[in-house]
Amino acid sequence: MELEGIAQRIKEKHGIPVTARDVARVLGAALTSADIWRIVDLAGLPVLATCEGLQAFAERGWVQFVDDRVWITAEGQKTAQALGIGPIQELRCPRCRGRGLELEPFRSLTQEFARVAKDRPEAAQEFDQGYVTEETTVARIALAFARGDLAGKEIIVLGDDDLVSLAAALTRLPKRVVALDVDARIVEFLSRTAKAENLALEAHLHDLRDPLPSELVRRFDTFFCDPTESFRGYLAFAHRGISALRGPGGAGYLGLTRLEASLAKWQRIQKALLEAGAVITDLFPNFHEYVNWPYIETMRAWAFLPVKRVPGKFEPWYRSALIRVELVEEPRVENVRYAGDIFTDEEAATT
Amino acid sequence: MELEGIAQRIKEKHGIPVTARDVARVLGAALTSADIWRIVDLAGLPVLATCEGLQAFAERGWVQFVDDRVWITAEGQKTAQALGIGPIQELRCPRCRGRGLELEPFRSLTQEFARVAKDRPEAAQEFDQGYVTEETTVARIALAFARGDLAGKEIIVLGDDDLVSLAAALTRLPKRVVALDVDARIVEFLSRTAKAENLALEAHLHDLRDPLPSELVRRFDTFFCDPTESFRGYLAFAHRGISALRGPGGAGYLGLTRLEASLAKWQRIQKALLEAGAVITDLFPNFHEYVNWPYIETMRAWAFLPVKRVPGKFEPWYRSALIRVELVEEPRVENVRYAGDIFTDEEAATT
Repeated sequence: MELEGIAQRIKEKHGIPVTARDVARVLGAALTSADIWRIVDLAGLPVLATCEGLQAFAERGWVQFVDDRVWITAEGQKTAQALGIGPIQELRCPRCRGRGLELEPFRSLTQEFARVAKDRPEAAQEFDQGYVTEETTVARIALAFARGDLAGKEIIVLGDDDLVSLAAALTRLPKRVVALDVDARIVEFLSRTAKAENLALEAHLHDLRDPLPSELVRRFDTFFCDPTESFRGYLAFAHRGISALRGPGGAGYLGLTRLEASLAKWQRIQKALLEAGAVITDLFPNFHEYVNWPYIETMRAWAFLPVKRVPGKFEPWYRSALIRVELVEEPRVENVRYAGDIFTDEEAATT
Repeated sequence: MELEGIAQRIKEKHGIPVTARDVARVLGAALTSADIWRIVDLAGLPVLATCEGLQAFAERGWVQFVDDRVWITAEGQKTAQALGIGPIQELRCPRCRGRGLELEPFRSLTQEFARVAKDRPEAAQEFDQGYVTEETTVARIALAFARGDLAGKEIIVLGDDDLVSLAAALTRLPKRVVALDVDARIVEFLSRTAKAENLALEAHLHDLRDPLPSELVRRFDTFFCDPTESFRGYLAFAHRGISALRGPGGAGYLGLTRLEASLAKWQRIQKALLEAGAVITDLFPNFHEYVNWPYIETMRAWAFLPVKRVPGKFEPWYRSALIRVELVEEPRVENVRYAGDIFTDEEAATT
């Protein structure tokens, strides 16, 4: 069938494993919106795969690129109908934006966090940064609270351009919060704010490719991290988090996109998390919404976009899932050094 | 530490793997409510483990059993505070009950489903039945719709006391819906309703311990099942579902409780799903709410409850997660016969 051929073409051109079903998702997204960023978001595939799919559709006359819009054609609509593909309706709850969480009890945290975060460092491509909306950070804290991973706990945040450590500490509920980041601007910002606000928060400069300092190994109840999404990079971050946990019952919160990780990569990542002694207790797709970073036009995927438009700062198109894991066994990870580039692979879009 | 000792005692007495963290969850639940069913629900452990934990707490003077209530004592509160354990707040969105889904577009389905389901067969212990609320069934259909697993698709439901097949067919969106059940009452009810309502739904009598008939193997886009929760039984159901899927891109919806499955069992189940060629794309805890079944007093866990009260029919305490999986590889499962009792193990509560 035709979608199968397009999936094959994407695999051959970009080395990204996609299925006919994935290609159908791109067509469904193009039926839903003419906006390239909405299509990228709804298709839920590595960005380059979506771009290649759209090119293949255009060659078949299913879509047309006009200025910065992607228009479905009558031919495209006919094809979609024949294949049983319709527009995508997310059915996202308007109150909680699909997270299922009531944030009302965290209203004052939201305000305080907005106040202290307003001078945050801007996202830097050098460190593969890109931070989530303030509401997202608060929602992450709320979920950790609801799961019993916040109050009275010792928490470590591995890479923190999202300022999760700050939001956690502002609740005054954790016993201790430690943030590690490779970016001196972030460490400096967190340290300064911790002092000014008198928070149980410490921030240290640390490159997560290096082993965790021994005084941080097996000392925490909860970790947060939003790994870079090459398979090797993802595991490096996740393993650091797991090795920071005291043992069974410890919990971790990880982000994972579909825009830089195919479902095939998701499967490898999930296998590795289970092998490390963890179980997946929660997996909410599209939990995290990102604020657009200033380096959109120099990111890897830009050149591949069939139509180009710089999205507004608060026009969310880059979303990611939140995965909560809990250790059910003694952690099985090695705290080793990772050499070389752990940030990119064929599915990368933003680096 | 003391919770560790209680965890050990639970393991020794019931063979259920629990962590100190799990025991802390029981104490947190007892801080939150004096109602035994709410405690069982919030603790999120195999029911027998929660019961044993409460007994251990009572021996230490942390709780007292008075009539049908479980009261936390001053000593219990002091202990919880010293251990950094607080009451559990679920922070469940009041609009979507924590599912993140907007059901408004399915309002007419809800009404129609309620109308045709009102003469449904009552849950029978013989078949390990117990059905979810009508809202839950509609929410499951809504999620499948949002994920593109409903419209234009061929769908199989393996074991259907929840009447998922009926709700799916009532949307008139799927190409074909097939339900298999071991209970002639259910098959008869579905067949009769399909005829009366002119639905693209067929129901067949089938014991899922037997291999799937060859005409149903690799023929479907989507499966639903709510497996029995012994490890062997769970896999039997899940593998039948996976073997019914056409191939990569096919999706499955499975229920999984924490009241009859420890997180250690969750881990084994997740490993098996990944090994079978699937990836977990969604995992919403407490997605399903059950209507209380008429055999509460003869279920296995009843004898172990420290205080006894029969809950009302629509007083939900038995909830379960919804796991959506998608095949990323050719399915790796064998369509074999399962002999003997696949329904019970040491974590079972309701059979």
